[in-house]
Amino acid sequence: MSLPTDTLAKAANQARGLAIDAVHKCSSGHLGLPLGAAEIGAALFGSALVHCPEQPRWRGRDRFVLSAGHGSMFLYAWLHLSGYEVSREDLAAFRQLHSKTPGHPEFRETPGVESTTGPLGQGIANAVGMAVAGKMAAARFNTPDHPLFDSSRVFCLAGDGCMQEGVALEAMEFAAHQQLDNLILIYDANDVTLDAMADKTQSLNAAARFKALGWDVQTIDGHDIEAIVKALKKARRAKSGKPQLVIAKTVIGKGIAEVEGTSKGHGEGGAKFAEAARARLGLPADEHFYVSEDVRAYFDAQKKRSARVANKWQRSYKAWRTANPALAAEIDTAAKAPSATQLLAAVPVFPADAKHGGTRAAGKDVLQPLAAQLPLLIGGSADLYGSTLNYIASSGDFEPATEANSAAVAGGRAGRNIRFGIREHAMAAIANGIAYDGLFRPSVATFLVFADYSRPAMRLAALTKLPVVYIYTHDSIGVGEDGPTHQPVETISALRLIPGFDVIRPGDAEEVVGAYAAALSREDGPTLIALSRQAVPLLNEIPAETRREGVLHGGYVAVRETTSLTHILIATGSELHLAVAAARELGSGVRVVSMPSMERFERQAPEYRESVLPSSCERRVAIEAGVTALWHRYVGPRGTIIGIDRFGISAPGPVIFKELGITAERVVEEVRALN
Amino acid sequence: MSLPTDTLAKAANQARGLAIDAVHKCSSGHLGLPLGAAEIGAALFGSALVHCPEQPRWRGRDRFVLSAGHGSMFLYAWLHLSGYEVSREDLAAFRQLHSKTPGHPEFRETPGVESTTGPLGQGIANAVGMAVAGKMAAARFNTPDHPLFDSSRVFCLAGDGCMQEGVALEAMEFAAHQQLDNLILIYDANDVTLDAMADKTQSLNAAARFKALGWDVQTIDGHDIEAIVKALKKARRAKSGKPQLVIAKTVIGKGIAEVEGTSKGHGEGGAKFAEAARARLGLPADEHFYVSEDVRAYFDAQKKRSARVANKWQRSYKAWRTANPALAAEIDTAAKAPSATQLLAAVPVFPADAKHGGTRAAGKDVLQPLAAQLPLLIGGSADLYGSTLNYIASSGDFEPATEANSAAVAGGRAGRNIRFGIREHAMAAIANGIAYDGLFRPSVATFLVFADYSRPAMRLAALTKLPVVYIYTHDSIGVGEDGPTHQPVETISALRLIPGFDVIRPGDAEEVVGAYAAALSREDGPTLIALSRQAVPLLNEIPAETRREGVLHGGYVAVRETTSLTHILIATGSELHLAVAAARELGSGVRVVSMPSMERFERQAPEYRESVLPSSCERRVAIEAGVTALWHRYVGPRGTIIGIDRFGISAPGPVIFKELGITAERVVEEVRALN
Repeated sequence: MSLPTDTLAKAANQARGLAIDAVHKCSSGHLGLPLGAAEIGAALFGSALVHCPEQPRWRGRDRFVLSAGHGSMFLYAWLHLSGYEVSREDLAAFRQLHSKTPGHPEFRETPGVESTTGPLGQGIANAVGMAVAGKMAAARFNTPDHPLFDSSRVFCLAGDGCMQEGVALEAMEFAAHQQLDNLILIYDANDVTLDAMADKTQSLNAAARFKALGWDVQTIDGHDIEAIVKALKKARRAKSGKPQLVIAKTVIGKGIAEVEGTSKGHGEGGAKFAEAARARLGLPADEHFYVSEDVRAYFDAQKKRSARVANKWQRSYKAWRTANPALAAEIDTAAKAPSATQLLAAVPVFPADAKHGGTRAAGKDVLQPLAAQLPLLIGGSADLYGSTLNYIASSGDFEPATEANSAAVAGGRAGRNIRFGIREHAMAAIANGIAYDGLFRPSVATFLVFADYSRPAMRLAALTKLPVVYIYTHDSIGVGEDGPTHQPVETISALRLIPGFDVIRPGDAEEVVGAYAAALSREDGPTLIALSRQAVPLLNEIPAETRREGVLHGGYVAVRETTSLTHILIATGSELHLAVAAARELGSGVRVVSMPSMERFERQAPEYRESVLPSSCERRVAIEAGVTALWHRYVGPRGTIIGIDRFGISAPGPVIFKELGITAERVVEEVRALN
Repeated sequence: MSLPTDTLAKAANQARGLAIDAVHKCSSGHLGLPLGAAEIGAALFGSALVHCPEQPRWRGRDRFVLSAGHGSMFLYAWLHLSGYEVSREDLAAFRQLHSKTPGHPEFRETPGVESTTGPLGQGIANAVGMAVAGKMAAARFNTPDHPLFDSSRVFCLAGDGCMQEGVALEAMEFAAHQQLDNLILIYDANDVTLDAMADKTQSLNAAARFKALGWDVQTIDGHDIEAIVKALKKARRAKSGKPQLVIAKTVIGKGIAEVEGTSKGHGEGGAKFAEAARARLGLPADEHFYVSEDVRAYFDAQKKRSARVANKWQRSYKAWRTANPALAAEIDTAAKAPSATQLLAAVPVFPADAKHGGTRAAGKDVLQPLAAQLPLLIGGSADLYGSTLNYIASSGDFEPATEANSAAVAGGRAGRNIRFGIREHAMAAIANGIAYDGLFRPSVATFLVFADYSRPAMRLAALTKLPVVYIYTHDSIGVGEDGPTHQPVETISALRLIPGFDVIRPGDAEEVVGAYAAALSREDGPTLIALSRQAVPLLNEIPAETRREGVLHGGYVAVRETTSLTHILIATGSELHLAVAAARELGSGVRVVSMPSMERFERQAPEYRESVLPSSCERRVAIEAGVTALWHRYVGPRGTIIGIDRFGISAPGPVIFKELGITAERVVEEVRALN
């Protein structure tokens, strides 16, 4: 079918009108991108994208990520035109309470929105993650008869804002190294940023930069629909093993003559010229949110065609399931996480004399049987497999297929371990992309102190309820000689503050089992497991099931008083051992509460929490090798907190613990001082 | 003088020996870089660097930043050889408690260490900041007779770890755009990362990438001392207006044959082969931390030459001071910040009917008289001047000198406003670099929710006690329509947890004055000022001096009870108004405490704190439009916290406040429920 450019050009102008009307109505929002990229939208949603508005999560679809999330009306307008469940009323409720059209696109809120974007740069990395998932799915699930996962592509639209962000720059390098030729990045190059013309802050040769990284680059006029469609087609067909960049030169805010091409065109500034602009765009004066009959008819036909393509894929998928029951069973594990109990059962109890070089080493042992149980679990690390030990040993590295590795099932594109490079931020954002895709379950690893590097992506995982797992190790001053730059003191508490984000800091190998079971059975949000560098013994005096299941509750009675309760010691991670040792010395009225996860504990019923921390007992001491601020809640004004409200020190770990007063003796002292 | 390459080659091997002995002694630390870059060290410290070990902070010196901070023994060895106050005993105490030679280089701990590094990528951005300071100093203080600030250069040594980090990638683009040809980056290209060969994670053409960004690039053999010296000389003399990259191909761990050139050479793995390696390096078997007489003699002579150069500069500086008393007075303001009282006096009290579009707009008004008072104060923004409003209006943009701007004193290289682009992380790390340099006082701005993007650099500012000021605006759900991705809820509390980091959230324009006075008078650490997007009125019922000075104390009695105290309401920022309104309704026994800065409040004497929050009054309600976790400390188990333990919503700001129950009515209800 030849491209109906006239209809698509009309659609582009009507999409402009939808954006103008929505922004004008609420006097808020960004017009620059929806107007400047209208022809890109027409080319994508009117031709290039293989998707199905009636089956928004159809697995064989192309993905589209609007990395420049502030241009959300672009997405809403084209989803509406394409026939997704985004009505005119939804468009008219742009940026209003409980609408389907929030200020920035939010995954789960709007059918067709593949990723929550707005914080710049993230969407590019999310798209890279989806492209990783695509390559991985093809390697693991394609069969010669049913190459189900070969055809889909990931499209991403980004502006200069995204292009300047470090997370995107990291992801671009990773994408090229990984030869993700199923990724098509469209650079809305309009030479303008929010504050000013882009040449106030950048002067690079973008095409040369991308080529140096290993991308294929095309440069086109971003208002020439035919040229865009052609470029996207070429990109889709590329067999170069290179991710595809299309630099589309556009005029920001195009359609509102008074502001177009300038930074004034970026936000809602142009809305006041709406009336004249609408007239020039050929929109009727008396109807807002206008779409012409012919444009509707075109997209209705498109929608029907899309459904046929999707249904054909679904039939092929069914045939594949019948022909490959083992693979089908594997893919089905994506739909529902096993229960924590099932996961606990998969890990043998450690022998009483087991020794581990830190809970990180226990993590390594726990990971292996769980990785067998969870075939879609993926591990990754930011150049710290050797330290975080989260490598799935039964598999190999995820890497471009080569003659050398294509024979080995373990590695290559089927490899379950992703080497992200020293790119913590992109690692977490790419993991989000894998989680958005929804087939694989990503876990990633680095030193805990570098959680700060990946925090913006972790926040988005929490906001979007993505079940990403972070295995972050070297969790305290126990890091030792590497010193304060590498010792988390505030990091754990700062992560606890992110709504919906679970932090678990297990105290021994059995608590590590509980932590993994909790994290991997969670479906509605991310979990970080904080593991120690330094060795900690097994707490054999506490039954293994108590430790394991205790973690699921977030906090539990680890050592129960044997006479009437006089004091409660509360501790996490390696400090649990200090509490237990102190309790032994202090006598029979002392209870030790292990509190590996405040967030999980707070989700328990009030009765349970009261049973663990009876309010009648106000003599309490909390011990954690980190900042004290969050512990006031648990010890109250009559309690004491042993912690570290300063940065760490470079010295051997045990020396630092002593220097900073994180010792069993100190616990004993503080408890006695309470009397 | 011709280059004594034999002596320098010997010095390189002895520097290797120092690193081997130090790492071997404590069985900890990284050998890869100190060994692989030994010839680079010889070229730098033996020839290229213009510095003065006896005057480590001499203003005319070259700076050297070891971005690859894990290779700290490289730096300590060369500082020792150069004659800095780093003794053999200090080297032998590598990574031990209270030594001058911590695991990663720490600013303030070791003479000659220009920047705290270790978290990868930061050092490159720090070096960019120092280069900015150099260009700025030259523009502002050079005179034709005394071009004091023209000669110094910033050298930075970085490996693949730094080169892969987003913060470095952002900074590289910024450096090229800003034409910082006083920056010389040496890329220790050894093809190895911690986990594996670098080709497992990268495959870019580094030279082409840097050229595309706008850098000059040389590629050399990193073990050829003559070639390195020549390349650095060429880089120093470049007048291309481009930052200078020297790609030095090296062999990691060179000198320990068993591990060199592999990832095993990166850490301490090679230490076990120390004895054989030392022999091959020509080091005596019976003396550790060995330096030969001729090498000592060479560096002693170098040190004397350095002192002559520095002293010559100091004489020139004295003459410049005499000839330019106004400039001298200006430069002297770098030595000591004005007191908070002085700063408060510089800002007129706002008229009672003053209206501001948010405390951010008040910030704009407060900034201008303070910028006049503080000539070395620099403002910057990550493409959000239009929203954060922190532009120093009396000056222009910092940008490369052009014919157009060189005449205007306001802008060009003398401009006091830095457009960082959409690069929040580099912005904060470059600000650290400016602060390390110590001449200018950096303040930077973006949306508060994006503090997460810059957090790793903020942590380092706190760790290193750098007086950077962050003017981060749009501080709550008051952001409104932009929605949860742009609404901080946990951000403020998460920043409060960083040791030594002050957060101030002022409640009206006069509290903003106090916030700026507090931040800009602080010399021993960073301060973030959180400002609102939405308008808040002046709290005229509270005297202006009470509000201003109250902020300096962190918390203060804003509204005092007029009968016996029954309840305390505690609030920050825009919620202070809700507390005041509620108190008005609740009656005469209610006190309102404004708590703009928990950190400053905690530094007050216990008596003061008790006077503000008498422990006898347990009926307390805290109100803040953010997570509640930190408020337990102030309300205790009998109090109530009104906050937001979830993400925000996209809707008009006032609608969200109502939807989430952050209202004066709710405060009244909760107080009554306490009775």
